[in-house]
Amino acid sequence: MYRTESSGFAGTGLHHASLLGLSEEAWLMRRKGFRRTANSIQIAESLFTTGNGYLNIRGSLEELPDGHAGGMYIGGVYDRSEADVEELVKCPMWTDVSVWSEGEKFSLSTCTLLFHEQVLDMKKGILHRSTTMRNSAGRILTIESLRLVYMHQIHLGYMLFRITPRNFSAPLRVFSGLNGEVCNRGFFPEERIKHLQIERIERGRNFMYLEMKTRQQGIRIAESASWKLILPKSARAYPEPRIYGEKFTSEMTLDVEKGQSYTFEKLAVVHTSREIPEDRMFRRSICELKKYVRTGAEVHLAAHLQAWEEKWKQADIRIAGDPPAQGALRFNIYQLLINGPPVSGSIGAKFLSSEGYLGHVFWDTEIFILPFFIYNFPETARNMLHYRYATLPGAMKNAERNGYRGAKYAWESASTGEDVTPRFASKLERTIRLIYTGMEEDHIVSDVIYGVEKYFRVTGDEDFLFECGLEMVFQTARFWASRVVFNGGIYEIRRVIGPDEFHEHVDNNAYTNYMVKWHLRLACMLFTYMTKRYRDRLEPICRKIELAEEEVAVWLSVSRGLKFSIDPATMLVEQFDGYFRLRDYIIEGFDRKGHPKLPRGVTYRNIGSTTLIKQADVLLLMHLFPHAFSEEAKQANFDYYEKRTAHKSSLSHCTHAMMGLSVGKRSRAYHYFMKTALFDLENLHGNTAMGIHAAAVGGAWQTVVYGFGGLSIKSDRLVLKPWLPGKWKRLSFSVRWQDRSIDLTIYHDRISICIAAPYDGEIPVSLYRKTYKIRTNRKEVLHYCSS
Amino acid sequence: MYRTESSGFAGTGLHHASLLGLSEEAWLMRRKGFRRTANSIQIAESLFTTGNGYLNIRGSLEELPDGHAGGMYIGGVYDRSEADVEELVKCPMWTDVSVWSEGEKFSLSTCTLLFHEQVLDMKKGILHRSTTMRNSAGRILTIESLRLVYMHQIHLGYMLFRITPRNFSAPLRVFSGLNGEVCNRGFFPEERIKHLQIERIERGRNFMYLEMKTRQQGIRIAESASWKLILPKSARAYPEPRIYGEKFTSEMTLDVEKGQSYTFEKLAVVHTSREIPEDRMFRRSICELKKYVRTGAEVHLAAHLQAWEEKWKQADIRIAGDPPAQGALRFNIYQLLINGPPVSGSIGAKFLSSEGYLGHVFWDTEIFILPFFIYNFPETARNMLHYRYATLPGAMKNAERNGYRGAKYAWESASTGEDVTPRFASKLERTIRLIYTGMEEDHIVSDVIYGVEKYFRVTGDEDFLFECGLEMVFQTARFWASRVVFNGGIYEIRRVIGPDEFHEHVDNNAYTNYMVKWHLRLACMLFTYMTKRYRDRLEPICRKIELAEEEVAVWLSVSRGLKFSIDPATMLVEQFDGYFRLRDYIIEGFDRKGHPKLPRGVTYRNIGSTTLIKQADVLLLMHLFPHAFSEEAKQANFDYYEKRTAHKSSLSHCTHAMMGLSVGKRSRAYHYFMKTALFDLENLHGNTAMGIHAAAVGGAWQTVVYGFGGLSIKSDRLVLKPWLPGKWKRLSFSVRWQDRSIDLTIYHDRISICIAAPYDGEIPVSLYRKTYKIRTNRKEVLHYCSS
Repeated sequence: MYRTESSGFAGTGLHHASLLGLSEEAWLMRRKGFRRTANSIQIAESLFTTGNGYLNIRGSLEELPDGHAGGMYIGGVYDRSEADVEELVKCPMWTDVSVWSEGEKFSLSTCTLLFHEQVLDMKKGILHRSTTMRNSAGRILTIESLRLVYMHQIHLGYMLFRITPRNFSAPLRVFSGLNGEVCNRGFFPEERIKHLQIERIERGRNFMYLEMKTRQQGIRIAESASWKLILPKSARAYPEPRIYGEKFTSEMTLDVEKGQSYTFEKLAVVHTSREIPEDRMFRRSICELKKYVRTGAEVHLAAHLQAWEEKWKQADIRIAGDPPAQGALRFNIYQLLINGPPVSGSIGAKFLSSEGYLGHVFWDTEIFILPFFIYNFPETARNMLHYRYATLPGAMKNAERNGYRGAKYAWESASTGEDVTPRFASKLERTIRLIYTGMEEDHIVSDVIYGVEKYFRVTGDEDFLFECGLEMVFQTARFWASRVVFNGGIYEIRRVIGPDEFHEHVDNNAYTNYMVKWHLRLACMLFTYMTKRYRDRLEPICRKIELAEEEVAVWLSVSRGLKFSIDPATMLVEQFDGYFRLRDYIIEGFDRKGHPKLPRGVTYRNIGSTTLIKQADVLLLMHLFPHAFSEEAKQANFDYYEKRTAHKSSLSHCTHAMMGLSVGKRSRAYHYFMKTALFDLENLHGNTAMGIHAAAVGGAWQTVVYGFGGLSIKSDRLVLKPWLPGKWKRLSFSVRWQDRSIDLTIYHDRISICIAAPYDGEIPVSLYRKTYKIRTNRKEVLHYCSS
Repeated sequence: MYRTESSGFAGTGLHHASLLGLSEEAWLMRRKGFRRTANSIQIAESLFTTGNGYLNIRGSLEELPDGHAGGMYIGGVYDRSEADVEELVKCPMWTDVSVWSEGEKFSLSTCTLLFHEQVLDMKKGILHRSTTMRNSAGRILTIESLRLVYMHQIHLGYMLFRITPRNFSAPLRVFSGLNGEVCNRGFFPEERIKHLQIERIERGRNFMYLEMKTRQQGIRIAESASWKLILPKSARAYPEPRIYGEKFTSEMTLDVEKGQSYTFEKLAVVHTSREIPEDRMFRRSICELKKYVRTGAEVHLAAHLQAWEEKWKQADIRIAGDPPAQGALRFNIYQLLINGPPVSGSIGAKFLSSEGYLGHVFWDTEIFILPFFIYNFPETARNMLHYRYATLPGAMKNAERNGYRGAKYAWESASTGEDVTPRFASKLERTIRLIYTGMEEDHIVSDVIYGVEKYFRVTGDEDFLFECGLEMVFQTARFWASRVVFNGGIYEIRRVIGPDEFHEHVDNNAYTNYMVKWHLRLACMLFTYMTKRYRDRLEPICRKIELAEEEVAVWLSVSRGLKFSIDPATMLVEQFDGYFRLRDYIIEGFDRKGHPKLPRGVTYRNIGSTTLIKQADVLLLMHLFPHAFSEEAKQANFDYYEKRTAHKSSLSHCTHAMMGLSVGKRSRAYHYFMKTALFDLENLHGNTAMGIHAAAVGGAWQTVVYGFGGLSIKSDRLVLKPWLPGKWKRLSFSVRWQDRSIDLTIYHDRISICIAAPYDGEIPVSLYRKTYKIRTNRKEVLHYCSS
């Protein structure tokens, strides 16, 4: 009865209504209805995360219904306290609001649901919600809100909150504040880890202030906020600021009238002591808040929308003819846009969307997520790689601790780069199991360098190499040289875990070995090249890390002698020594949740005794080095491994999509693409409640650009091998390449390309077998045949 | 049906049952039944406080029913944080236990009450409770507990907790831990002040550890505990230690059998960083806990009982023939025994029984509470006065801040002695009112010195004078000399509040002026005496505080010239300048709650316009200096002021009791005595929920010893003017006087006295008009007539 299709504030008479209307439908993600299960509530929270890469907030309902796992996270704020290892810290919240009537809270946990919808406006980075509910006394209330953190001013947040009593006039109490009573989930069920201690809580005439400090690392988080009733202007409510321990609440009692809407506005400011000296946090926070209040939200909203427009202008990908794919892709790109670190810092495997994987940074970052930023926002990509440079000392400690030289990037990395892989897993299985990934999954070391090389190849940023990159490449090469073992004339890498984590303690994982071969060769090439060309700039680096030519020579011989082979008869790459001798099993089908049927007598505990693999391993290698393997080899390995892949990782589908395209299994590829693109929207692995799968998100982007777009960069030339699914009419996107910006529109038979550059000239572009010289700064159309 | 008269553990088969049986009935305070109101719950919590003066715990039920205000307090641990002023800090709790059955907690808030009793064994300092309740599923459970903090080892606590399922066998979950999620009540209703931040929380195989720090002062509080199922030995329960933010919980699931009792034992250790360096707290606490576990509770319980026996041997007062008076008096002495500071430190106006009056130290301490300790435990009295010495720098700041010289003791004092009187009152009246006591109630300065003089007179402790006392006396005298104003040949003290707080901003309050006269004269006398006798010891003090003879001479002239007079016609002392010209009002009666009827048009807001007074003021003066006023004057002033006294302070009744005895109003005196003695037991002022009224407690003791016993010390002689109420057959008590211990038994017509001393000799004892020489170390009987 109170059902409305629009949950925005458009046309509500708000003075900035024009700013706050909803975008057209294609930019919206809607979720209607409400189920009281914690899982359902938390899935919505993950999906409706808003943020700017510094400050991200889960899409929890303001009244925090039972079962919620609301949280706000600040990029790079990790802490250990009683946790097993450092983890991303849940920060004090400013978005909680509750409305009470006669001792009863209006909450979907207890009230009768009449209407509920959340709408994420992805174009604008704004979360809307509209709910109408009836409490036990029969009172019907509509709650609407919109909230965001600004993209142009990462420290500020904004919320509008509106209530409308539908069938009653009575006093209501409305609470909102700053809530420092937050804990992270602990290891044991329902245990909670408190990372924050209260430092200061203050009330002023027009502000509230809360300052807390992380217990182990001593990072202070300062939040200030202003909360007031803004409409109707005639309504009066006296805010009573209250301190409840670590919780600040501003309470307002107002006599609401039936049918009248009451709108509150909240302005919030968030800083950490990484940006402001501790002793100035209070003054600075309050000062910023006052400035914000003076300026007003309207000006900021305009700047915010401008910032989002620019983001989308660069990053949007348009698919004509396939709205589901278009919608899913937009969601994935939205996720990438709200997670790019605005300063030196990286991206965790669940983004800043939850405490899943403890907010740690894995190889997902460089292999799956980084490409989007390299091609769209190279400054952000540089921030991400700079994080790896900043954590090089931690990586060196990891190497030293394990008896190696150089730098060993951590399988799981947080604030220092020292390995923070938890020692035990896992809650879900309700058993405690040793985790070996931190000890053995060493391919991460080369994955990071893969990211560095990719960044350099696309951006041509030599300064980064000299400031950070070379040191990273050399120190990690040095690690590998100390890690390999020499055995009967060849080098081996023993006791590792490859991307496929079903098989632990294996020797000579093909992915790892090839990566290391490439990595060491890269190190040598860079050393040789730089010695020739920039000896002056290279020398201080070599002095700093005590690197001499003799050592580099060793790297080259290790690279050459490292075990790796393709069976010339079958063209197959054996995933690791002895893999082919395992009990063979071809997957016969998947259940509704996407889990494969397991062979008799096999569980996830002894799965390593079979050829079943968790995710793309050899195939990923072939995808990462497409020019290093013949079409025949790709075909053979795809055929062999796909049947044995359980896809129990969110990293698997996109690789199969791209490899599928590469070997001509195009309908399989589209199937895998949609799995990747809908991974969280359809809760494919059942754990979206615990956060967004960042690798799948990055993989979806890669599948479109690398896969359907068929784009790659080969030294001086742009390579394109596009193919569009039948129903796609058109695919358009832009990428940046060095100082150039490339606009591409791909049709089934032709592409339209425009390479904007600061100079007029010609750029070589390969389109399938032909190479064209494309003039910069003008649109060109090229025809092709993909079959 | 499960009603039992005994709630103790006697005869339960516990291996230390013999230690834990209940004392005889006269030593027990019982409270049966349970009302769900917060007020009723909190009254019981105040009354059932256990402690040792370092660590006191309110008598809250282990499961903390709704409305509880449980709390543990450590003497002298104050903090400000967001509070208006420093306040006593509620410390992390270790006595919480909850028992759950199928998601429902056994709590008197929700279950049906079948039986409930708390029993305080005052002889042993142990709190027992026994409760049988039925939950919504019909399951009947009996919960019994006993708990205590040791008197001989102030850092250790002990609890036994026993559950007996009466009509079911099922799994139960039992939780207990260390709860750091505690907050003080804030100023506004329901607001909460968080004084503690978490520093460390650790679990070990057999221990839990929680360390928190006060936010403003940085005092750390470390608690460790062991919690286990001890009986039946066959029962097994696996404790699962869990950390929930600032709360540590050990959870046990056990399959209980109908009719079988299960007993848990908890050992707790509490320290602060005032006793142990911060970096050693964890190790020391765990080490003490392990020692405690190894030693076992039995040994400690024996030592505890021994310590209590010694306390009672000195402090007990036996009244034959009046069980209600005897019981009430025991309760009051018990309160004094559990509140004596074991090291330098004082006693707040609500003891360590709650956050009432924020745990602050008032004049109540020296005037009402100190005498008990002077006469029974002079070491404790010295600790209390040492607190005033330690806070002398704060007192000097108070003087300086107000433009005076010397030292001005704070009206409300906490950790530093700087004035911490809140600026505003009061919650109960729901209006905010400026508090002037901190600015004007300056008699506190001389009240402290009255305590010093009394201590010295009774104990003869000259060392204290040289180490602390003289400096206090001189610096405060110096304050007064700068505070008085010289006006037309006399000195005046303007704009004060006397003990009667109904009248603010008055000039020349008789109590204050007389006190100051006496105080300055005392300072001169001590200076002169010490100059003569101990010049060497006095000189460093005079040098330190820059005191010269000339200044002392000024004190004498101020003392002599300070305004104070008795009207020779009426023998009345006017309470302050102009008091007799106020609208006169004689109280016509009291309501059920003891509040007087007010004259028409008068509220507590404008009560200062009448002669109604809040509490004894002139009468208190006459009580404190009994030899300075004639019988006639006492009589006249008693007659005049009693009729105009509202007794709105817990300090009033005992003064009227003693003055009543002094002027022959003996049945009135007994009436006032019982009011004092039952002040909290009968919740006379309706606010016992907020803590025990320490002054009334001390006043009850004084009324018996000074009043009915008629005891005083006059330089070298013991003075006795006993009078017993008709129904009292006998009154016996002991007091210490210098190195002597006096045992007295008073009958209606005779006394039996024994003065134990380290030497044989004769002591002059005045009994009414006669003086006897009493031989030490033997019992003597003297007859008297009191009429």
